[in-house]
Amino acid sequence: MSLIVQKYGGSSVADAESIKRVARRIVAAKQAGNDVVVAVSAMGDTTDELIDLAHEVSPKPDPREFDMLVTTGERVSMALLAMAIKALGHDARSYTGSQAGMITDATHGDARIVDVTPVRVREALDEGAIAIVAGFQGFNRDSRDITTLGRGGSDTTAVALAAALDADLCEIYSDVDGVFTADPRVVPKAHKLHHVSSEEMLELAGSGAKVLHIRAVEYARRQGVTLHVRSSFSDNEGTIVYNPDRAEEFEVEEPMIAGVAHDLSQAKITIAGVPDVPGKAAEIFTLVAEQGANIDMIVQNVSEVGTGVTDISFTLPKNSAGPVLDVLRAASDSIGYGDLRLDDNIGKISLVGSGMRTNSGVSAQLFTALKDAGINIDMISTSEIRISIIVRADIVTEATRVVHTAFGLDGDSDAVVYAGTGR
Amino acid sequence: MSLIVQKYGGSSVADAESIKRVARRIVAAKQAGNDVVVAVSAMGDTTDELIDLAHEVSPKPDPREFDMLVTTGERVSMALLAMAIKALGHDARSYTGSQAGMITDATHGDARIVDVTPVRVREALDEGAIAIVAGFQGFNRDSRDITTLGRGGSDTTAVALAAALDADLCEIYSDVDGVFTADPRVVPKAHKLHHVSSEEMLELAGSGAKVLHIRAVEYARRQGVTLHVRSSFSDNEGTIVYNPDRAEEFEVEEPMIAGVAHDLSQAKITIAGVPDVPGKAAEIFTLVAEQGANIDMIVQNVSEVGTGVTDISFTLPKNSAGPVLDVLRAASDSIGYGDLRLDDNIGKISLVGSGMRTNSGVSAQLFTALKDAGINIDMISTSEIRISIIVRADIVTEATRVVHTAFGLDGDSDAVVYAGTGR
Repeated sequence: MSLIVQKYGGSSVADAESIKRVARRIVAAKQAGNDVVVAVSAMGDTTDELIDLAHEVSPKPDPREFDMLVTTGERVSMALLAMAIKALGHDARSYTGSQAGMITDATHGDARIVDVTPVRVREALDEGAIAIVAGFQGFNRDSRDITTLGRGGSDTTAVALAAALDADLCEIYSDVDGVFTADPRVVPKAHKLHHVSSEEMLELAGSGAKVLHIRAVEYARRQGVTLHVRSSFSDNEGTIVYNPDRAEEFEVEEPMIAGVAHDLSQAKITIAGVPDVPGKAAEIFTLVAEQGANIDMIVQNVSEVGTGVTDISFTLPKNSAGPVLDVLRAASDSIGYGDLRLDDNIGKISLVGSGMRTNSGVSAQLFTALKDAGINIDMISTSEIRISIIVRADIVTEATRVVHTAFGLDGDSDAVVYAGTGR
Repeated sequence: MSLIVQKYGGSSVADAESIKRVARRIVAAKQAGNDVVVAVSAMGDTTDELIDLAHEVSPKPDPREFDMLVTTGERVSMALLAMAIKALGHDARSYTGSQAGMITDATHGDARIVDVTPVRVREALDEGAIAIVAGFQGFNRDSRDITTLGRGGSDTTAVALAAALDADLCEIYSDVDGVFTADPRVVPKAHKLHHVSSEEMLELAGSGAKVLHIRAVEYARRQGVTLHVRSSFSDNEGTIVYNPDRAEEFEVEEPMIAGVAHDLSQAKITIAGVPDVPGKAAEIFTLVAEQGANIDMIVQNVSEVGTGVTDISFTLPKNSAGPVLDVLRAASDSIGYGDLRLDDNIGKISLVGSGMRTNSGVSAQLFTALKDAGINIDMISTSEIRISIIVRADIVTEATRVVHTAFGLDGDSDAVVYAGTGR
């Protein structure tokens, strides 16, 4: 008998009919001889509606109360799902994050899991029941308060349960068929990957691919949890996200490139005319870090001989740009720069593949393809298995397609895109 | 400094604007120098919407999951209310039933409070914060599961908190101005009572007056909690519900009659031709009790000489009538009755007042008034401070007005009735 953890996203449980469909799928997994644990998101737009209500009663909702509020969404869906399973004649029990032993730190809105003690989940399984756990939420022991895990929290709930219960597989159900070589809405010829390594998935998720949240992938890699990303609207096989140390189990043939991700959520700040003396970069990025901004790429020009000044550019999430500009302006005299510029009309394209480790020609191939298409590159950064470039926002679609084709990723036919969904 | 417990019903927190209005009222009570604890219901129709969802996914929702589902409504309103108070610059913290120490038995859907340990509520008050508690819900220690207190549960939460915290006053806010001598929608000349004793309130609540639920009144009487029933939509004084042993504190002049309640929720079952031998009534009412039906009135005719049979009639809630008829039909041979009849076209009118204890003329005055109006009485029952009669449903309004006038309860002007509300 296998133990399977399944996660269903909000669009998979958007209404009563969807919940009943998901219940039948869960029962099928149980009837196939598995122990089944389910992590579930809030129904459809419930969370957004609750957030709207919060902002109607308060300009800056209290974080503790905000977590109390938004965690009700998953409690509704888990109770309904358990009822629907019971109506099919199978035992099911729902558990809140606290009841399921999802112990977190006290950071409301973005809590980290510190321990998982799924005693009641295990009891339910031992008694032959299906356990349904509210996604996205946890509990802090010191404050005795309810917390939330931040964006992608329900994926993280599923992975954390899979790790704590030593599950054989963690299935992440959403409304997309799996992990694609590119976003099918941008690159129609993108094709579904049968397998992708967790380190490639981490780079893809960090580079704008939205099918899995980066925190959940990190957790899965660290804990050695194998993921199966698939659609709750079909019976198609999805994408297996495997740990590199189990590569032999899964790989038939590892392609050099796993996929191309794009990201339009970043902005670029340029500080021009910075004195080229030691400590200036440290001064600047200490100020930036104090605003909690996640810096992605940094480029410092070599200072021209004789000028004694240099330019520093960096990218960061658009919604962090305002506060960062404010502190940099305030520090204008102390840093002594010439000019401060914001550019929020940029896009990032990332090529990801573990084959890059052993193939030095990837960068050259990438730059040649872009040059041939007349596409200008603004910034470049690389990791061991990723090359990212910044281009103008309006040519991101074209550039993504060019790269996808250049690396032989185009499929034989157009990918199926589900209407109105992108998660 | 006084400690006040306030309860706000669903119509008082129906939307973001209402929640902000209630927050201002709570802050005003705090600024007047009181410690304030608030029990809150779910917003508007939230609970009904959740119940509808449950019935969409399951013909017979599991009771444990049902409680998990419907308790989310109060969690939403309490978190929003705490946020709204914080936005006004005052400290506020919301607590679930479990966090507030509302310990109940394990009867899902209709749990009884077995202990109240509001440690965190007390801590919040000690630190100068306003404590907001989810109404209607509790927690069972053995099963570690969430329970609900049944109908009127948020009133009960408020009263139980007031008792456990030894509060000076428990204010029950709804959309009506207080306790009236009759339902103002039925008797336009009904007037608001300034005071009513808890035993009178108990009889009124048990007789169909909907402003307070009978379980909350019972709890208040048993624990010696003084209630102030008032409207959250005005600053008018409402009605004080006081314990008889504190009568001197509140009473200026006790009227003989407190009010007239009416109730259209009952049905009457008549079993005709029952053998007039010992044990038949016991046999019948044992069967009825096994269906969980709450019998209200019972009338057994004196058997006519020589027939050896008698008729037994009783009233019970309409929704219990079906199952009870079924078991009585099944027991037809063993009981040996002649005929079984259901009449669901009846209404009950109850005259309540502690002055009845010392005034033997009330019954006569009642029956005379009804006779003069040509109203036929079907059944009669009495308690120490109540007389109830059953009449045809279609003359309940007329009969209630006749009784109200006959006992001098008519006010000088018509009562104000809030549009569209009756709670």
